[in-house]
Amino acid sequence: MRFDLKGNFTFSGDLSFIKKEINGFISEFNKKNLAEKDASIENIKISKNSLFFNIVSSGNFRPHNVLLQIKNAVSKEFGKKYHLGIRDIKIQGYTIEFDLDKKPLKKVVIPFAEVKLKEKQATMVLKDVDEEFLRKNYIDRMINLVKEKVENQYYEGKGEFWKSIWESKEKKPVWSKDPTEEMAKLGWVQQGPTKGKWFYRPQATAILKTMEEIAIKEVLKPLGFQEIIESHIVPFDIWLKTGHMEGMPGEFYYVAEPITRDAEKWERFVDLTKITKEIHVDELKKNIGAPNAGICYAQCPVIYWSFKGKTVSEKSLPILVYDNTAVSGRYESGGRHGIERVDEFHRIEPVYIGTREQLLSLREKFLERYKHVFNKILDLEWRMAWVTPWYMQQAGKVGDTGTQDTGTIDFEAYMPYRGDRKKSEWLEFQNLSILGDKYVKAFNIKAQKSELWSGCSGIGLERWAAAFLAQKGLDPDKWPAGFKKYLKELPDGIEFL
Amino acid sequence: MRFDLKGNFTFSGDLSFIKKEINGFISEFNKKNLAEKDASIENIKISKNSLFFNIVSSGNFRPHNVLLQIKNAVSKEFGKKYHLGIRDIKIQGYTIEFDLDKKPLKKVVIPFAEVKLKEKQATMVLKDVDEEFLRKNYIDRMINLVKEKVENQYYEGKGEFWKSIWESKEKKPVWSKDPTEEMAKLGWVQQGPTKGKWFYRPQATAILKTMEEIAIKEVLKPLGFQEIIESHIVPFDIWLKTGHMEGMPGEFYYVAEPITRDAEKWERFVDLTKITKEIHVDELKKNIGAPNAGICYAQCPVIYWSFKGKTVSEKSLPILVYDNTAVSGRYESGGRHGIERVDEFHRIEPVYIGTREQLLSLREKFLERYKHVFNKILDLEWRMAWVTPWYMQQAGKVGDTGTQDTGTIDFEAYMPYRGDRKKSEWLEFQNLSILGDKYVKAFNIKAQKSELWSGCSGIGLERWAAAFLAQKGLDPDKWPAGFKKYLKELPDGIEFL
Repeated sequence: MRFDLKGNFTFSGDLSFIKKEINGFISEFNKKNLAEKDASIENIKISKNSLFFNIVSSGNFRPHNVLLQIKNAVSKEFGKKYHLGIRDIKIQGYTIEFDLDKKPLKKVVIPFAEVKLKEKQATMVLKDVDEEFLRKNYIDRMINLVKEKVENQYYEGKGEFWKSIWESKEKKPVWSKDPTEEMAKLGWVQQGPTKGKWFYRPQATAILKTMEEIAIKEVLKPLGFQEIIESHIVPFDIWLKTGHMEGMPGEFYYVAEPITRDAEKWERFVDLTKITKEIHVDELKKNIGAPNAGICYAQCPVIYWSFKGKTVSEKSLPILVYDNTAVSGRYESGGRHGIERVDEFHRIEPVYIGTREQLLSLREKFLERYKHVFNKILDLEWRMAWVTPWYMQQAGKVGDTGTQDTGTIDFEAYMPYRGDRKKSEWLEFQNLSILGDKYVKAFNIKAQKSELWSGCSGIGLERWAAAFLAQKGLDPDKWPAGFKKYLKELPDGIEFL
Repeated sequence: MRFDLKGNFTFSGDLSFIKKEINGFISEFNKKNLAEKDASIENIKISKNSLFFNIVSSGNFRPHNVLLQIKNAVSKEFGKKYHLGIRDIKIQGYTIEFDLDKKPLKKVVIPFAEVKLKEKQATMVLKDVDEEFLRKNYIDRMINLVKEKVENQYYEGKGEFWKSIWESKEKKPVWSKDPTEEMAKLGWVQQGPTKGKWFYRPQATAILKTMEEIAIKEVLKPLGFQEIIESHIVPFDIWLKTGHMEGMPGEFYYVAEPITRDAEKWERFVDLTKITKEIHVDELKKNIGAPNAGICYAQCPVIYWSFKGKTVSEKSLPILVYDNTAVSGRYESGGRHGIERVDEFHRIEPVYIGTREQLLSLREKFLERYKHVFNKILDLEWRMAWVTPWYMQQAGKVGDTGTQDTGTIDFEAYMPYRGDRKKSEWLEFQNLSILGDKYVKAFNIKAQKSELWSGCSGIGLERWAAAFLAQKGLDPDKWPAGFKKYLKELPDGIEFL
């Protein structure tokens, strides 16, 4: 790496008369403080009240980390002696060169700097930087961002890592229709009031609630999970910690609060609404703040947040909790389909925090319970595969086969309406992850003695129902006995003319 | 009422030469079309291409309703004859006088007009109005708004109508502490990540889930209710129909969607987030639309919406459905307290639609079931009262005693921690409403033959729990036997150091 910071100090008076002394002091400072760090202060120029200089470093040492130190040393040396104080620090430019792991495939743009790429070397050029900016550790994050962007140029278009680890037998589906379309015809579901939402009438609700009951009674309770209830409104600071805010800001439903409840402040908006029976957006905006939160995207972030900074008693390990209350929202734009790809869905999310051994053992038990449910109760044709989500791919932790500790197992079901089982895309209807210490570190969660890991396993009720209905149809007579034990008959629903 | 609309037509050519003819035509028009309506066109002035006039009415007739008719008649009469077409209509002013039921106590301001009040008479003066505005029926809504605002001056500061109709026996409370404070000390609940939300740990969750189970098993299932699942994101057009949008816009949590999911459009926001670990609101705002929905405030609007424009088969009457999924948000600003006055809460909302007789009979059955739960299972000290919500008060439908059909019954529980049972405020922990045809009309819901009414009854789990715990404490040993049958013991929870 190579750093070159061009800056100047403005003094309270003319320095010209102590030019030599200053040069001498700085060359001494170089020897004492910077030489061993492969750094030095160069190009000293003095002009009236100003001292110009470059701080260069050809190692890992960041010149901006020494700026304040130099300022203090110079002040101390010349302040009392000549009554010369430093009034201002300016950084006119900052150039940083560093090596890349891979040769860039195209140019890279980041905020705050111009980025030049040449073979496997990057140069970041910053202009008019303030001290505050340097102090905030932005420089290192900018270097990482350039590296990450080059790395991503190689991933682009490549699917996630996927490796099958288990497959059920082929099972003859009862039908090959799209269950949502058929449910809509029967009036079991209707399109919701906004995009990608559904209104589940009694028949479809009974099916979703049965999936919920099965998940709780056959998986979560036997494994010892306790229920919690979390808020479904997630403030940005939680998503900053989990990485969601930088990971998928285009997929959130954003939440904004009123600035006030004061009726007088709202009077004009209310009057306009009463008179025109329309929403006056500009008037509304006057009384609403900027978004500061979003609707639950996954339930685990708020669960982790609830343990933030806490030290857990050993006897409470592993922590086994689930939320079954927060409704999830994901802005899907395109690609919505049926009840399986929606903007709003209902998920039970178990989160587990414990030692590596506890979680590996828990994973085995989870697999055993899920197999029981999907084989014996729902009687599905399904398979499991190791996959690697974006944040692990980015960290370069692409999973290897079979024996890995951390990572995600996807559960996929054959969807007969999509066509041939070998060629069509199967539905991811369940997952199971062990995420190492990523989240416990982010939220500073500790145990009395043990090192902690964590993981989660999203149980999407719509996904379970979609997989089941796509294979088993809508006629309860044709449903497997294991499921019929839970749902004997469908409710009557409501009849329309 | 008195209306005076001052307007002019601009013609394609000079009119001066047919002044007399026009005057004659208009005086004929007055006789034929307006005299019987106590209206007339007056102050005819012709200047070059322009015809100026006032249309005045001293009855209920609205001059703007005749404007187009006059235009057409004039065009027809003079268009062909003299090749003079009307190019433009201008309304320079419109003055409307009308009587008020009550003498105003202070001035009234509304959009689009200056309002002058004198004794029991109001004058609205509009300037530079366009045709479109007049056509949209704003004028009548503006008249109503002025009347309503004067009416409200008399209501201000007066509480809602309240009349006790039933009281339980006094019961000796187990303690007089604030249950939320004590639960927080025990770690059963913790403050949520944003204002007025809670994170319910396993012990508190078990209590809320027990309330849910009791409500479903002891009230809703025995009465024949079927569960539905609705979206918890409510678009403004639904709230325009229910009146919520003009009723409580300062109490919503607003929802805004991303404008795009396109990663390129989000790149700068993502980069800024990665570098600064802060949210750049201005950059964020570029990619988010204006709010177009809110988080569920009550569940009934979306249930009504789901029946919009439908005709229900007689045999499906009464429709008995409930939602137990949408999480409710209400921006409380001040006045938050414990788990009983919060920004986010969990409510089961049964909605019933049927004939007047069906709903009156259902109300009796509801009361019987609620009494069973609150007396025999929760063993509460509580009472019922007729109350009248804002929208019925505004419509002048203040309930009379005892025998009324429509209206709301509030269920209130004594909260020992608030002090003396006679002097302290009791907690509204349940309500039961029959709302007449307000909502079935708003959503155009019809039955095969019958006239429909509707109603709802919000079952707030936090409110039930707050009332119960305030009277019965946190020690399961001291809980009534009826409740212990449902919740034998509390879960262990998680222990922290």
